[in-house]
Amino acid sequence: MDMLWSGWGDPAKAAPLPDSVTGLLRDLLGVTPRESGPSALTDIEPPAPALTDEARTALRSAVGAPEGLREDAESRIRHTRGKSTPDLLRIRAGEVDDIPAAVVLPGDHDEVLAVLRACADHAVAAVPFGGGTSVVGGLAPTTKRPFVALDLRGLDQLLAVDEVSRTATLQPGLRGPQAEALLNEKGWTLGHFPQSFEWATVGGFAAARSSGQASAGYGRFDEMVLGLTVATPEGTLETGRAPRSAAGPDLRQLVLGSEGALGVITAVTVRIRPLPEKRIYEGWRFASFEAGTAALRRLAQDGPRPTVLRLSDESETFIGLAQPDAIGDAELPQNPGCMAIVGYEGTEEETMARRAVAREVLIACDGEYIGEEPGDRWEHGRYNAPYLRDALLDAGAFAETLETAAFWSAIPGLYTAVRDALTSTLTGAGTPPLVMCHISHTYENGASLYFTVVSAQGEDALAHWEPVKRAANDAILAAGGTISHHHGVGTDHRDWYAREIGPLGIRMLQAVKAEVDPSGVLSPGVLIPVR
Amino acid sequence: MDMLWSGWGDPAKAAPLPDSVTGLLRDLLGVTPRESGPSALTDIEPPAPALTDEARTALRSAVGAPEGLREDAESRIRHTRGKSTPDLLRIRAGEVDDIPAAVVLPGDHDEVLAVLRACADHAVAAVPFGGGTSVVGGLAPTTKRPFVALDLRGLDQLLAVDEVSRTATLQPGLRGPQAEALLNEKGWTLGHFPQSFEWATVGGFAAARSSGQASAGYGRFDEMVLGLTVATPEGTLETGRAPRSAAGPDLRQLVLGSEGALGVITAVTVRIRPLPEKRIYEGWRFASFEAGTAALRRLAQDGPRPTVLRLSDESETFIGLAQPDAIGDAELPQNPGCMAIVGYEGTEEETMARRAVAREVLIACDGEYIGEEPGDRWEHGRYNAPYLRDALLDAGAFAETLETAAFWSAIPGLYTAVRDALTSTLTGAGTPPLVMCHISHTYENGASLYFTVVSAQGEDALAHWEPVKRAANDAILAAGGTISHHHGVGTDHRDWYAREIGPLGIRMLQAVKAEVDPSGVLSPGVLIPVR
Repeated sequence: MDMLWSGWGDPAKAAPLPDSVTGLLRDLLGVTPRESGPSALTDIEPPAPALTDEARTALRSAVGAPEGLREDAESRIRHTRGKSTPDLLRIRAGEVDDIPAAVVLPGDHDEVLAVLRACADHAVAAVPFGGGTSVVGGLAPTTKRPFVALDLRGLDQLLAVDEVSRTATLQPGLRGPQAEALLNEKGWTLGHFPQSFEWATVGGFAAARSSGQASAGYGRFDEMVLGLTVATPEGTLETGRAPRSAAGPDLRQLVLGSEGALGVITAVTVRIRPLPEKRIYEGWRFASFEAGTAALRRLAQDGPRPTVLRLSDESETFIGLAQPDAIGDAELPQNPGCMAIVGYEGTEEETMARRAVAREVLIACDGEYIGEEPGDRWEHGRYNAPYLRDALLDAGAFAETLETAAFWSAIPGLYTAVRDALTSTLTGAGTPPLVMCHISHTYENGASLYFTVVSAQGEDALAHWEPVKRAANDAILAAGGTISHHHGVGTDHRDWYAREIGPLGIRMLQAVKAEVDPSGVLSPGVLIPVR
Repeated sequence: MDMLWSGWGDPAKAAPLPDSVTGLLRDLLGVTPRESGPSALTDIEPPAPALTDEARTALRSAVGAPEGLREDAESRIRHTRGKSTPDLLRIRAGEVDDIPAAVVLPGDHDEVLAVLRACADHAVAAVPFGGGTSVVGGLAPTTKRPFVALDLRGLDQLLAVDEVSRTATLQPGLRGPQAEALLNEKGWTLGHFPQSFEWATVGGFAAARSSGQASAGYGRFDEMVLGLTVATPEGTLETGRAPRSAAGPDLRQLVLGSEGALGVITAVTVRIRPLPEKRIYEGWRFASFEAGTAALRRLAQDGPRPTVLRLSDESETFIGLAQPDAIGDAELPQNPGCMAIVGYEGTEEETMARRAVAREVLIACDGEYIGEEPGDRWEHGRYNAPYLRDALLDAGAFAETLETAAFWSAIPGLYTAVRDALTSTLTGAGTPPLVMCHISHTYENGASLYFTVVSAQGEDALAHWEPVKRAANDAILAAGGTISHHHGVGTDHRDWYAREIGPLGIRMLQAVKAEVDPSGVLSPGVLIPVR
């Protein structure tokens, strides 16, 4: 199934906001219904395909089959940009200036290599495309050349399972549920469940350093990766002969997070774990975000570590975004404090033992147990927030998320700085926002902060948001955070990324890119500024 | 205190072999006493310092103080090569063809930058020097230019402790015990205890991806590193704003393992942990290496994970190298099977709880508990093996170690392949060896294998060993292992490293090196083949 062209996910799952929420948006944030753009994909008229005949012939020959190169309007529109709120606003307005010249569908590693060589020969750029879920402009290269979307859906096999080593080798085009189903059949799980799980792909998880909702227990995707096969215009890189090695820099960690700019990942060897016998998700309540943060830190540092560990701040708890299904629920308490979701997965025995010790810690940290119902609600709605965003946009509101991470000691200042930046810029622009935040990923030495902001759109929603986003990014860097914990850099965060890693760091990446991609085929301007 | 110039460690701790062992070496391996080389450092006459007057002036000015540049014979000899067995045989023979032109002692990051610039300006190479404990030729560059040893002992401060985030920032010249003492004073530990602990430095741990004896509990050094400051001829790189990030490739992991070839590490931010209240080390016996390996794998995969987890094979267990102090002990049983050392560290409560569950697992895996005495013996002798090697060399034997790692399913084949390669080449050369092995580091998906080989030296000990080492390295790659799990690449493993990561991997590293070190100042030929 294809994703909704103008929003998120399965069109059948779209649902309008309850009237109570529409009323709340109007009364609280001044949100009013907006004119909508083209009502159907077929209303959009993209510019004519820009491939030369020679390029077309070379690309068709690279992928073998005629249907491996698609230049029809629908295919191209469906591969235009990603799923950030600005991306959705643009496509809803019928704006397709970032459209690929064609969509190329290779079937294996060698065809990917051939596509990259054809692109290099014919001055065409190539943007690896998995689930198309980038929210940071990772699919919109900065280039005047025509580019093709290199759609990896044809590489969708489970290549190998090593049950002794507990590893599996997956092709990059497998979507989250496909990969899980193939592993589950054999009794294994990857344990990687980001919010984009239903659509994003294994290759994208690796290329963008994804982190899932069960990261406390299963780790980030980059921590699961043990080996990579990468196609570049200059040939193939294979890396990962052992879980850990002292043989030089870890080249896996140079490919992870490279967002397609250094190569196309064509196989990923990952750590797998036995399918859990038991899963429990519970709600806990803390008097304040500070108190809840202290409890999460204690579990992350001294253990035992739950599998899922997340904490909403006061406003997110109040609005009930922690459980999107509950939004507008009249039964929400008036002063709910801060809600945490704490989950445990594993064998029956180990799960219950770990839960028992973690409960003692949470109680010692003044947590109040509020039962499994909030946990079940969270589980039920865990992939639904992007649908809610569509409904908010439909109702004329602006809704977007952004995220960062830092060491624990920087978390309070970072929280305040980003919140203040969002609130003051949007309020200054005449659209006071609702800003919500949660901690969704914890580490021994720090945590992530995930912000959701909802406001009225302003006259020109894109122009209205742009200075707000800049202010938030500036605030993140000034407060010691990283410009992204799990969304990535893409083109949207590139300037801040360059500030974060400094000129020498950028030069190092540019040097690697020039070596593996001398013609600049791979996602020009994504992640790495063009030299 | 300076390390023994002709061997390992504190000269006062050197001890000859017991007569029983000397007899065993003679009867079993045909080891006979050899002529020894120069008896004193002062017997060695190095070539005259090769710095030009201009280079000397520039380097002296870079380090500020006159004593920051040393060209005397003793300083230079003490900075010649490292501590591999071939290194020791060479220096004992008075061979100093790899001697640095001078020793430079910067006092801070800016002086390191100035030294690198002075080197670039005057066609001098620079080899970062921490504890001088490399066993892979990491301190012997491949260059015809003069080079200086860039000794970092002057950078020996604990710069910061963040008790909330549990991080500490250390300067690179701190030796293991110095770093531990500074942290222990405040109630913290790094938990990094490699065999070289007493001499190796924090900068070296990072540059060479060290792994300590408590890695099962505390992780490898590269897993502890959260931030790095790096001086290069082109400027400074600062990396690490959060424990984990999706902002591009992890540049920390490009510096870790770069062995001085990509920059000089001038500050390391590491994860710290509370000093353990409790430490217990125990012995367990398994009927075979296979049975013991299965037990280690089960603990590594399903937990609970001990802090120390190592397993000697039958021959190492028999010889008692698992506890170097016990060598030649008449009370060793005749068929001891395979000995494992299993250690637990942490709070009293957590340690005892973890130990109780791990004991059940070990018993279920047919392990036999043999008490704390073997654990205490292991702890007492944990840093002594290099002293034993000196005694073996003194007695005319050849003794060397080598190590690798792989995924669990490859471990049995790798074990056999390396053992066979060592045994057959040495036997073919007329000196049948004793080959011992242990698993010293375990991961969810694999483990390391650490081999010790002892034989007679042959006519020319260096020429005798060289084809053996080549055969072992070839066997490692052919059996799917990495060329080093924790010793590193240096110059000795460079050719096999190039085969391991392939031509494109090497080109990526060469490109980074050319960018940050365009004149090729930094450890030429170490790790990265000169382009």
